[in-house]
Amino acid sequence: MRYLHTMVRVTDLDASIDFYCNKLGLEELRRVDVEAGRFTLVFLAAPGNELAQVELTYNWDPEAYTGGRNFGHLAYEVEDVYAACQRLMDGGVTINRPPRDGHMAFVRSPDGISIELLQKGERLAPKEPWASMPNTGVW
Amino acid sequence: MRYLHTMVRVTDLDASIDFYCNKLGLEELRRVDVEAGRFTLVFLAAPGNELAQVELTYNWDPEAYTGGRNFGHLAYEVEDVYAACQRLMDGGVTINRPPRDGHMAFVRSPDGISIELLQKGERLAPKEPWASMPNTGVW
Repeated sequence: MRYLHTMVRVTDLDASIDFYCNKLGLEELRRVDVEAGRFTLVFLAAPGNELAQVELTYNWDPEAYTGGRNFGHLAYEVEDVYAACQRLMDGGVTINRPPRDGHMAFVRSPDGISIELLQKGERLAPKEPWASMPNTGVW
Repeated sequence: MRYLHTMVRVTDLDASIDFYCNKLGLEELRRVDVEAGRFTLVFLAAPGNELAQVELTYNWDPEAYTGGRNFGHLAYEVEDVYAACQRLMDGGVTINRPPRDGHMAFVRSPDGISIELLQKGERLAPKEPWASMPNTGVW
């Protein structure tokens, strides 16, 4: 038995690729357009960690996707949580839970999927602007 | 950057461990009780695939967890999709999408988290009771 992926539905495929790849840092592995079912699947993974994937499902017929409380978040370990948050913030993403502790941050995808970023190894020394940045919203 | 886990919230920890471990086939790796935050975390993974985990969050103060459409499912590859579904069905789990095609099945956790089971390698030859089993509900 082997974990393959977590699937999330996205309303705007371009905005989602921009978030998950350009800002979060995942890579697109493959894409499948299913004309008969009117949907596109895009498989993403962290570079060098291709066995654990995220599957984006984009239904061609628009639907608004709301969140629920049974699903919590996707978690990734990062080399530098400050650098990861800086890249997201520079891309216009709200850092809902800034890494004040040099250890943990939370952001949300365009469709409200909560993403946890955890510093690899020891927590980093406190650093501005993160150390004094308040929480925004929920995650 | 490395995938760590998908977190889901559970209302009944014993029922969830029974589902994810005894019926689905994951293993419990570690458990953390956080008295100050009044929650318990349990980390699960497929045997031999410990780097891709599921984190169960059990809040000690009861809350009902509903689902949303932005999260889709967790997907696992299995050695024998019929055997996996038989074990789940014997445990009282509804097979929402039976593996009629010898390839794919869907079930739901006690808190409504959709789980996709995909046959490893080539699809299996059609076999009863799966081949003629109708869908139940949504997944």
